[in-house]
Amino acid sequence: MKFKVKDMDIATGGILIVILNHNDATKLDLHSGDRILVKAKKSSITCILDISESDVAVPEGKIGLFEEVLDRLGIHEGNLVEVSFTGKPESVKHIREKLHGKRLSYKQLYHIIDDITHDRLTDIEKTYFVAAGFSNGWNIEEIVDMTQAMVETGTKMKFKGIVLDKHCIGGVPGNRTTMVVIPIIAAAGFVIPKTSSRAITSPAGTADTMECLAKVELPQEKIKEIVKKTGACIVHGGSMNLAPADDKIIDVENPLSIDAEGQLLASVMAKKYSVGANHVLIDIPMGKSTKANTWDKAKRLRKLFEKIGKRLDMNVKVIITDGTHPIGNGVGPVLEAEDVMAVLRNEILAPSDLRKKALYMAGILFEMTGKCKKGKGYQMATEILDNGRAYKKMLDIIKEQGKQPMPKLGEEKYYVKAKKFGHVTEINNEIIAKVARIAGAPTDKGAGLYLNKKPHDVVKKGELLYTIYAESKFKLDLAVNFIKKNSGFVIK
Amino acid sequence: MKFKVKDMDIATGGILIVILNHNDATKLDLHSGDRILVKAKKSSITCILDISESDVAVPEGKIGLFEEVLDRLGIHEGNLVEVSFTGKPESVKHIREKLHGKRLSYKQLYHIIDDITHDRLTDIEKTYFVAAGFSNGWNIEEIVDMTQAMVETGTKMKFKGIVLDKHCIGGVPGNRTTMVVIPIIAAAGFVIPKTSSRAITSPAGTADTMECLAKVELPQEKIKEIVKKTGACIVHGGSMNLAPADDKIIDVENPLSIDAEGQLLASVMAKKYSVGANHVLIDIPMGKSTKANTWDKAKRLRKLFEKIGKRLDMNVKVIITDGTHPIGNGVGPVLEAEDVMAVLRNEILAPSDLRKKALYMAGILFEMTGKCKKGKGYQMATEILDNGRAYKKMLDIIKEQGKQPMPKLGEEKYYVKAKKFGHVTEINNEIIAKVARIAGAPTDKGAGLYLNKKPHDVVKKGELLYTIYAESKFKLDLAVNFIKKNSGFVIK
Repeated sequence: MKFKVKDMDIATGGILIVILNHNDATKLDLHSGDRILVKAKKSSITCILDISESDVAVPEGKIGLFEEVLDRLGIHEGNLVEVSFTGKPESVKHIREKLHGKRLSYKQLYHIIDDITHDRLTDIEKTYFVAAGFSNGWNIEEIVDMTQAMVETGTKMKFKGIVLDKHCIGGVPGNRTTMVVIPIIAAAGFVIPKTSSRAITSPAGTADTMECLAKVELPQEKIKEIVKKTGACIVHGGSMNLAPADDKIIDVENPLSIDAEGQLLASVMAKKYSVGANHVLIDIPMGKSTKANTWDKAKRLRKLFEKIGKRLDMNVKVIITDGTHPIGNGVGPVLEAEDVMAVLRNEILAPSDLRKKALYMAGILFEMTGKCKKGKGYQMATEILDNGRAYKKMLDIIKEQGKQPMPKLGEEKYYVKAKKFGHVTEINNEIIAKVARIAGAPTDKGAGLYLNKKPHDVVKKGELLYTIYAESKFKLDLAVNFIKKNSGFVIK
Repeated sequence: MKFKVKDMDIATGGILIVILNHNDATKLDLHSGDRILVKAKKSSITCILDISESDVAVPEGKIGLFEEVLDRLGIHEGNLVEVSFTGKPESVKHIREKLHGKRLSYKQLYHIIDDITHDRLTDIEKTYFVAAGFSNGWNIEEIVDMTQAMVETGTKMKFKGIVLDKHCIGGVPGNRTTMVVIPIIAAAGFVIPKTSSRAITSPAGTADTMECLAKVELPQEKIKEIVKKTGACIVHGGSMNLAPADDKIIDVENPLSIDAEGQLLASVMAKKYSVGANHVLIDIPMGKSTKANTWDKAKRLRKLFEKIGKRLDMNVKVIITDGTHPIGNGVGPVLEAEDVMAVLRNEILAPSDLRKKALYMAGILFEMTGKCKKGKGYQMATEILDNGRAYKKMLDIIKEQGKQPMPKLGEEKYYVKAKKFGHVTEINNEIIAKVARIAGAPTDKGAGLYLNKKPHDVVKKGELLYTIYAESKFKLDLAVNFIKKNSGFVIK
């Protein structure tokens, strides 16, 4: 049956949806959610059917198409397309099987991941996939298979010899070790192509912070060139099509804040595998607001990461670190970028916790390569940082990626002061992150906050705890209003 | 922040969705799927946010609203509305808890069911609810609580004294016992307000079949009046708002053909409870294509139905019947309506299997009331059918609901004949249903098929097995083409 195209002028940003009038759908015995094959002159694609009850939106004889479908078929308003029913993809059967508790094979997982990658599954089907894995669990083989399927359905990079990488599973504001570790490692002559994410629920991701210094959205060929020249890069992974199924799975995890362990493991490992890393250091911060909020959970994750690494022929080392409070002084893109550069420039006022954690991690990476004696890594990293080679390397990386002028720090300020004398016993990660976000971070790059006190410091009544920065008075007021209930500092 | 309304001219048929431009969403730190409160002059509602990446669909400063939102707020293109973030409803927390294996209380289940009823949950969230229950199971208390929550969030009917009802969990083509049982019961002076469904994946539902004889979409007040007058009704339950959450849950079960036992039980019992039934007979056909495809499953379901009935103070009796092959001769609305009327008129050629099953069920219902001696129900039902009182009652019900002229039987015919001599050992329900659907049933009311042979019959080579009826040559050809591989008859 043929239909005249109506351009709905809406982009859905993923799933390919077409709309038929309810009368046409009834005639063809088609239902909402059915897969249908839409055939234009030159090409055809499988879409998911939505039904319009209104005759205004999509009248009989017409088919409403969204931008993605029009683009892929290369057609316009008024063109004719043919429509026919096609069954559900086989992957839906496998999702059902998983929901019934069956263990899935590589081939079955590949089907699912491939269909997710190419937007052939609906949100409902993807949700069943996540829920089935969450409830029934994934075993090690399945996680390894899922990781490999994610890698195979995306773009892969390859570099010769030793390729290092690091990853932090997040939850700690200001924790920008990546931007210190990468130049130290690269300055020693190792290859470390680092792809990072942007903030989703935190005040800054590494990509947001690096963007204050250099371009982070680069074409893949350019990235390869930069890594060949400097040994490293610090770019945004999102646009690189590395394990693209991962982000699409996260989309259906977010609404319920589902933290499916199997998916987390596959997600991290797939990104590392896609860039060809063979030595990977993983940082699991432990604290009440992080993913590993107990020692048992952290140890369990460590074991799983190491096991999966072994299966993928990757040398994986996992460190469990203190995730109870922020790292560094700044929280927010510009403030964190300034912290990082202060550490790299060996400034006296550079945050010592960020410096120490980065050196510790760089040292372990050096030892993992086998090119540095056990126990000598920290010293090697310290030398490279102290003699300015890491800073010089960072300037090289920035230059190659395309230097950007540092955005201005927010001009609206508010000083948060201690209400009594005592010891700082806690700085709450979640409150601090929330304050920085309300002040505008990460969208307003100059927004955030600067910590003047850290845990264990002694403070006098009226002494400065932290400064909130915002780019507008409006957002500053919102943030100030928010901390009325709780500043995030516990003083005892 | 205020936005100018853009009428998107699309009806979504449920969930309340609004669209903001990606730049506005970023400014407000809002994400796709967030709940936002949309405030117009007179009222405000909670909607779910979608983000437009294109500036054409929804430019900055505008908010795209779908028909449902415009209607509920009573606003139009160009009006101003205010938008603010609101958190997820508490029910999402309860869904997470269920996903983690927790048992839910009545209050928690009520929250979830109430939010589903009022379209406050997204498809993704509803899917997690179904998947969580499917994977972790629901215990009896939870099913009872869910049933009651479904009833409380919908419309309830009430009749005095003994109120009977029957239900079949489906899967058998032609199984229209309801339309014979109801008039028999009502003719004996009992009250039996029957609401039925339309076909979703079968060639005809009771509502589709009854619609060949009388109106089935009636306002609730009218239905009450009919039941008071005649003691019965046979109407479509879909538009009556009885346990409305149920249909919305089924919407997310369909894409994966999930058959969640707990949901099935709650669904059936809620519909019966909503019409005030206190004696309910449930028919579980057992066969390889029915929901209870093993004796163990059928017995398990029986036990659960009876347990839940007890908790709800309902006298529930469950019969497990032969679901291996079609009941009656006709399959499709008109053909099934003719079967029913032939049985009620005591015609010699009326299908004896449909007659016997209906008498058996009516007899049990009589005995359940306590107004008929044990073992005497079948006889009582037979008398009422044989002396024409049931037929007369059916004519009353038809008249009260509004008699409709019987649609014409499809004029395009195809005779399916035996390819060899032998016994009919099997008539495959799924193939028979599929043939009738391809021929046009239930949308084309005169389409379907008429079985000339039943299981155990002896057939000669070339003898007529069944006749396919269609309203168009095109659909007849499709059906004929379909049975080339398999006619649905096994002859040995």
